[in-house]
Amino acid sequence: MSRTVVISVDAMGGDKGPAPVVGGMAKSAAKNPDLRFLLHGDPAALKPLLQKRAGLAAVTEIRESTSVIAMDQKPSHALRHGRGSSMWNAIEAVANDEADVAVSCGNTGALMAMSMLRLKRAPGIDRPAIAVMWPSRNPSGYNIVLDVGADLRADETSLVQFAIMGAEYARLGLKLDMPRVGLLNVGTEETKGRRGHRSALERLNQMDRQPDRRFHHVGYVEGGDITGDRVDVIVTDGYTGNIALKTAEGTASLIGEFLAEAFRATPLSRIAALFAMTSLHRLRKRIDPRRVNGGVFLGLGGAVVKSHGSADATGVSAALKLAFRMGREGFAKKLAERVASGGTRVKDAGGFMPDIRKEA
Amino acid sequence: MSRTVVISVDAMGGDKGPAPVVGGMAKSAAKNPDLRFLLHGDPAALKPLLQKRAGLAAVTEIRESTSVIAMDQKPSHALRHGRGSSMWNAIEAVANDEADVAVSCGNTGALMAMSMLRLKRAPGIDRPAIAVMWPSRNPSGYNIVLDVGADLRADETSLVQFAIMGAEYARLGLKLDMPRVGLLNVGTEETKGRRGHRSALERLNQMDRQPDRRFHHVGYVEGGDITGDRVDVIVTDGYTGNIALKTAEGTASLIGEFLAEAFRATPLSRIAALFAMTSLHRLRKRIDPRRVNGGVFLGLGGAVVKSHGSADATGVSAALKLAFRMGREGFAKKLAERVASGGTRVKDAGGFMPDIRKEA
Repeated sequence: MSRTVVISVDAMGGDKGPAPVVGGMAKSAAKNPDLRFLLHGDPAALKPLLQKRAGLAAVTEIRESTSVIAMDQKPSHALRHGRGSSMWNAIEAVANDEADVAVSCGNTGALMAMSMLRLKRAPGIDRPAIAVMWPSRNPSGYNIVLDVGADLRADETSLVQFAIMGAEYARLGLKLDMPRVGLLNVGTEETKGRRGHRSALERLNQMDRQPDRRFHHVGYVEGGDITGDRVDVIVTDGYTGNIALKTAEGTASLIGEFLAEAFRATPLSRIAALFAMTSLHRLRKRIDPRRVNGGVFLGLGGAVVKSHGSADATGVSAALKLAFRMGREGFAKKLAERVASGGTRVKDAGGFMPDIRKEA
Repeated sequence: MSRTVVISVDAMGGDKGPAPVVGGMAKSAAKNPDLRFLLHGDPAALKPLLQKRAGLAAVTEIRESTSVIAMDQKPSHALRHGRGSSMWNAIEAVANDEADVAVSCGNTGALMAMSMLRLKRAPGIDRPAIAVMWPSRNPSGYNIVLDVGADLRADETSLVQFAIMGAEYARLGLKLDMPRVGLLNVGTEETKGRRGHRSALERLNQMDRQPDRRFHHVGYVEGGDITGDRVDVIVTDGYTGNIALKTAEGTASLIGEFLAEAFRATPLSRIAALFAMTSLHRLRKRIDPRRVNGGVFLGLGGAVVKSHGSADATGVSAALKLAFRMGREGFAKKLAERVASGGTRVKDAGGFMPDIRKEA
């Protein structure tokens, strides 16, 4: 059943340079014999890193690239001057069918702009979206939120497409048979909401009544449901999703600081911190962004995973795992077929993601 | 210097009925001899509660009201059928100049709808806003965010007015001389953002160059700045603000649950919890919503404070303290003058909030 998946990796774009990228590749390669890499960047920097990792050089081909897209570069500037950069070449390899999926820790805006240019939108998709996994009360531990920044003002059609794409991503990423999808709003009453939201709601309600539906639409959800267990997929425009994501990250980081300060406050509390260390470590693990690393670009003519800019080897490895699954399933192509069919069963697609549940 | 402030209190609208409301009044009255109350609700329920609290009956006048606005009642329904309710009468007393400020733990939408109808918008204000205090890294411990739900799609003029109103609220509520104000967006570059945002930004930049400015405008801020120390006041439309607020609350509550679970996980961690109890209590205090209880309605012809629906006596007392300050300073009226003058010094307003810093 297994087939080789080639991941095209931008080695240079992240905050921490190529070391954690190669470290993450080594972790993933050790666990997964079906992985191959195209590694884009400066060979002089990459070769020594590769050689330190047993077996990694054998499954990796280094591709020289002449420049790096900076984290703070404007997407428009990156598009004009970024040809030949490690990011550009990573995407280019997917566009040329040399690789199944591209992974980068670099500048999100530039990555999306280049992906749009080289991979194009998939047929039938109005606007691509960036989807992230979000810690939640659900059994899987995560919800999916989209869009978090690609389409700042999503219209009715985009919101419906985001719902379909988010549900398929939940089937792949959270291994759910019938993901519950909700449309983010300021209240749960059907009469509330902006005009585009109300018509998207009606179309999703209609889809929910189809016998061959592939997700369940619960209606409007609120900000509190993003971390809750009422839905698995939260659909919103990129403006709202981006602000919600950064607000949540800010809140989590503030509480983390307050917690640390609380345990530093007195000599006794510093002793308490020693006793509490295991418990605090358990908490940190549950809200660790590295474990959910990887926003995915949905709706393009090829698969692209955006890893966190400051990801370490563990984070990069998590993003590579996700990329592997997407590559193996031909996710990008099948997703477009789903959207074209309006989120119901596609006759010719056969068993879409048939063996995802067999994977550990 | 002291003058009596009359607070008109809706005793019945909260989730927990009148007991925590009267409890909060007792706490506040014990600390502040300048407080008087009009208490709206069912005298049969209120009289016994009042009599249990030494001295409270002497500063409180009970006003009978015949009905209660339910938490889940639609604002439009509450407007049509809510005349004579405890909430209606609490607002009515401010409209009739019998009280300086109204406080309710009830249904936010109904409270805003009734306040709009009876108190009207203040002259020159396009749309009122709901402002809340938000835990942050700033020395005061809090930032102010507005709007969180009154004006779902604020236009350019509303955003500018929100900035002025939020800055004045920061002067009162956070005791800042020159609050820093930022406009919420998906990036900090001036070229980013929706059209209404860009023109609001330009107008705020202009105001920032005035020699008699009363706040400093820092430009765009992001979701992470809501809990940060880069600004004191975050300005956004009610749709985005509401979703950000509920997302942050959800995140805080999820982390709280994870933390509790981490300390319950093993026998050793339960022992660690005993040692850590003081530290955890210290954390809880810093993110306790009761201590920042009270969204305020800005831009109306009278002052209204919305307390949390499930507030206990401590929470109600915090809302009453805020209401007292607003009443003493004639905040609602002076705020409208500020907006009319474009956020700069008002000649005839004299010492706006002259003695706020003398208050403990």
